[in-house]
Amino acid sequence: MNDDPREREGEQPPELPADGNLLGGSRFGLDRRGFLAVGGSGALFCTLAVTGGDPKEARRLARAADAAAARVKQPQGIARDAVDRLSFATPQPQPGGQAREYWLQARSVVWDYAPTGRDEWMGARVPGPRKRRFRAYVYQQYSAGFAAPIGHPAIPGPTLHAEVGDTLVVHFRNGDDHFNQAVTMHPHGVRYTPDYDGSYFGDFTRVGGFIAPGEEFTYTWEAVPGAVGVWPYHDHGPNHTLNTARGLFGAVVIRERGARAPDVEKIVYLHSFGPEVTGFDQVVQCINGRSYAGNTPTVRAKVGQDVALHVIGGDANFHTFHIHGHRWTDAAGVDVDTREVGPFETLTARFLEDNPGRWMYHCHVFPHQDAGMAGWYLVDP
Amino acid sequence: MNDDPREREGEQPPELPADGNLLGGSRFGLDRRGFLAVGGSGALFCTLAVTGGDPKEARRLARAADAAAARVKQPQGIARDAVDRLSFATPQPQPGGQAREYWLQARSVVWDYAPTGRDEWMGARVPGPRKRRFRAYVYQQYSAGFAAPIGHPAIPGPTLHAEVGDTLVVHFRNGDDHFNQAVTMHPHGVRYTPDYDGSYFGDFTRVGGFIAPGEEFTYTWEAVPGAVGVWPYHDHGPNHTLNTARGLFGAVVIRERGARAPDVEKIVYLHSFGPEVTGFDQVVQCINGRSYAGNTPTVRAKVGQDVALHVIGGDANFHTFHIHGHRWTDAAGVDVDTREVGPFETLTARFLEDNPGRWMYHCHVFPHQDAGMAGWYLVDP
Amino acid sequence: MNDDPREREGEQPPELPADGNLLGGSRFGLDRRGFLAVGGSGALFCTLAVTGGDPKEARRLARAADAAAARVKQPQGIARDAVDRLSFATPQPQPGGQAREYWLQARSVVWDYAPTGRDEWMGARVPGPRKRRFRAYVYQQYSAGFAAPIGHPAIPGPTLHAEVGDTLVVHFRNGDDHFNQAVTMHPHGVRYTPDYDGSYFGDFTRVGGFIAPGEEFTYTWEAVPGAVGVWPYHDHGPNHTLNTARGLFGAVVIRERGARAPDVEKIVYLHSFGPEVTGFDQVVQCINGRSYAGNTPTVRAKVGQDVALHVIGGDANFHTFHIHGHRWTDAAGVDVDTREVGPFETLTARFLEDNPGRWMYHCHVFPHQDAGMAGWYLVDP
Repeated sequence: MNDDPREREGEQPPELPADGNLLGGSRFGLDRRGFLAVGGSGALFCTLAVTGGDPKEARRLARAADAAAARVKQPQGIARDAVDRLSFATPQPQPGGQAREYWLQARSVVWDYAPTGRDEWMGARVPGPRKRRFRAYVYQQYSAGFAAPIGHPAIPGPTLHAEVGDTLVVHFRNGDDHFNQAVTMHPHGVRYTPDYDGSYFGDFTRVGGFIAPGEEFTYTWEAVPGAVGVWPYHDHGPNHTLNTARGLFGAVVIRERGARAPDVEKIVYLHSFGPEVTGFDQVVQCINGRSYAGNTPTVRAKVGQDVALHVIGGDANFHTFHIHGHRWTDAAGVDVDTREVGPFETLTARFLEDNPGRWMYHCHVFPHQDAGMAGWYLVDP
Repeated sequence: MNDDPREREGEQPPELPADGNLLGGSRFGLDRRGFLAVGGSGALFCTLAVTGGDPKEARRLARAADAAAARVKQPQGIARDAVDRLSFATPQPQPGGQAREYWLQARSVVWDYAPTGRDEWMGARVPGPRKRRFRAYVYQQYSAGFAAPIGHPAIPGPTLHAEVGDTLVVHFRNGDDHFNQAVTMHPHGVRYTPDYDGSYFGDFTRVGGFIAPGEEFTYTWEAVPGAVGVWPYHDHGPNHTLNTARGLFGAVVIRERGARAPDVEKIVYLHSFGPEVTGFDQVVQCINGRSYAGNTPTVRAKVGQDVALHVIGGDANFHTFHIHGHRWTDAAGVDVDTREVGPFETLTARFLEDNPGRWMYHCHVFPHQDAGMAGWYLVDP
Repeated sequence: MNDDPREREGEQPPELPADGNLLGGSRFGLDRRGFLAVGGSGALFCTLAVTGGDPKEARRLARAADAAAARVKQPQGIARDAVDRLSFATPQPQPGGQAREYWLQARSVVWDYAPTGRDEWMGARVPGPRKRRFRAYVYQQYSAGFAAPIGHPAIPGPTLHAEVGDTLVVHFRNGDDHFNQAVTMHPHGVRYTPDYDGSYFGDFTRVGGFIAPGEEFTYTWEAVPGAVGVWPYHDHGPNHTLNTARGLFGAVVIRERGARAPDVEKIVYLHSFGPEVTGFDQVVQCINGRSYAGNTPTVRAKVGQDVALHVIGGDANFHTFHIHGHRWTDAAGVDVDTREVGPFETLTARFLEDNPGRWMYHCHVFPHQDAGMAGWYLVDP
């Protein structure tokens, strides 16, 4: 490395803001050690995702990230730029539209990634540890006013439905008493003002970007015409990578006004649980929180039905989604039976069912498929 | 990890089938050790693909997977679900269509991934070992009745051609006496009943999903209108990941009835041979079983010709295919000269040749390109 | 491994050229050791990219690749094939078009990937070393005749603009006195003859494929109708992988004749600096040579403006590009807010701005995002 200072003229520093505090200490009462741990979680997950990592080191770094996230204080919000001083009205439904209300609570739960213990595809015991439980983190749906949970906790969280012109009004509570850190809901596809972005932005965080344990916040999102489609939502708080990997994700479905739903419609999240999440040594490849056929969703349809599988990439890997015995036409008019889907993209496979029998759907990345990212698709005549 | 049983209510077990055997022993006479090894091949390849892995461990696990696969017995087939009791007629050609018959034999062969020993691109000796031979596994074409082999063994196997309304009738023999395990042919794109899916499904395996050494089976696949395109076929038996990686793959080309073939048409499989396949330490990046320009296919065309390169992803990696000096229009109408192709997707680059000279085609993932995934494209004026 | 010679008949060697020299020594005066190091750079980057690698080994191999590249001599060019004997006229602008001249010099410079030292997103110090300077390699623009540099060195290099019917005439000088190796400019999208491909092809290298230190070469590229779009250019010399990773890349924008540029247009290169480039231990995830919000470009627009972000994959990884609060319509007519972009592909996100505030744009691969691949997008009302 040549450090000849004459060469430094090549360097082009970005403009430094007038606020001298930029390079100074934090406003959040988080010590440097804490920040390093938070900031370092990027490197952590980079290592995990790209190398497969050392599971022991992964777990150590996850503990450090959790500890640091638990120390992050509510940002006060600073207005360094004119855009930070903007204020926004809460969006209302368009004429003819309605406000679709949901109550969702973030909760950590004990989760088994393969409750049957069997891989029906290979007719074998699921490889890996006999005990497959770990602490996952889920969005759980409640009845109005958080009166009572609706159904069991699930991964992904509840699917939120709206039509163009509606608003989605999501009452969100951070109901977790275990991880003790702020979480959020960040939606894709729908329109929202910065207040409802649901993203932690450090000093620039707005109200919806930091929901501390025990707190509630109501997000309002707009189903604008360009939002028609199926989209992910997920945590975007200070520890988003780890908490999303634990299961804090779900889907939004926006349809044209009055559009008919497919006869069979299924959200299919392709994701994984790594050692930093499970505490186990191997990475588990999952569909909707479960691993291996018979544990992953068994989808069922009937000849003649309009079937839509909405496949969402839910981890740091790229996948190719394949269904045996079927093909579908993509938006450009090409018939495919295998199609890539990247992190937090959505791929919709929609087709008129015409082929009865027992089929398999799976990720066509062999190591994902083999490590559990596969399920049954059963078609009755 | 908090194991407080009160939290277990969060767990949502899938319904257990009435068949109590689900959690019991195997029907296949395979001991637990064997199943673990088979089931564990997922973790094996995950490790290999994502980490580059420890070559020694990769080879050990491949030996274990081969040994386990050799012990898997012909499934008896069970009918747990109504769909498992369905029976299917063998499809016939549509009026005006025909049955296109092929005879294919799976054979393991000694294979050299770089017979010239030279990388013509870099003007250098191919890096790595001087001895580049290992045991690959190929689909080889035979004349009717398996009378005689047609040509030399090749990777990929023979390209199967049909037009809409035809059936592909593929007489398949597992002719390998080395690996001693069941293999299959699983096609993409074409229509088939569950009998001709060519997939091992454990207890749910149908006739075409387990072709033991020395056995024969005839697959019948339909060239339905939605099947127009170019598609992979590959092994989907009990040890599919390892055997596909060894070379058990090929392509199906379905055209509209009477459609004219391009003047130059080439199947371009982007894949790799890892230590678990070759026994060597490094991963070799290949096009059609060969590595480094001058070993990989040299494609030749002439100005004015209609050229189609059908690029298929044949391993667990994602690739971007690039041709120097050319571009093509994709299905959505965008001109591109580099386009991604994921595992077992097909990308077609089709263009009217207008640029004479020596060109290179390659994967634009630098480490793939540099490790051999590159070849010459020569255009005469 | 069975080496039974009877099995060798399975082997299908490609035709060996009549030129017996193919397997002989090099024409370049490079000893075998040198070639191995050059040829081995593929394996090097494969290891680096796929495994995250051992930083120490990565640095050692980079030093070896640099040393080998410094020994590669100007190829003499051989005409083994008829296409190698073709000669080509220099293209001229079409009627109504013009020659657009640029002067670009390749230079290595000391570069800081995060000059502020702060990650504004997390409100934290940038993780990793306090000293973030290393020797990068850039294309820098000069005024006519290389009279004087235009602006500071930047990553990516200057954006080259032309309209259909124009030629791009790029006067290129290898002005680096540090790395002491040949480099080139290889463009995507535009049309060029083999002379202007800018690619080192070993014995088959043409004039533009090896620009030694201190030498100059003028590339002439054609803005044909199919070239409309935004494309990368980058080094394709003997050590292209390492030098491209150091920053030797930029973009070409080709528009229809008279087409109006978007109101806001930004090239967004998603790439990374690894240990082999920086000398540091961790991989740094970058946008345009910088890492972490406040260092990466802050893009600014205003409600009502036509905004285009041209996202180019600039390393060996696949990315998904996401903008908060916005979506765009892809070429097939699908509305998206996250879309994959592979190595040296271009993704254009173009939309009518309608949502004021502070937004984030980032790669949605969490480990990339967290390790710095994120930036601000500020929208005034």
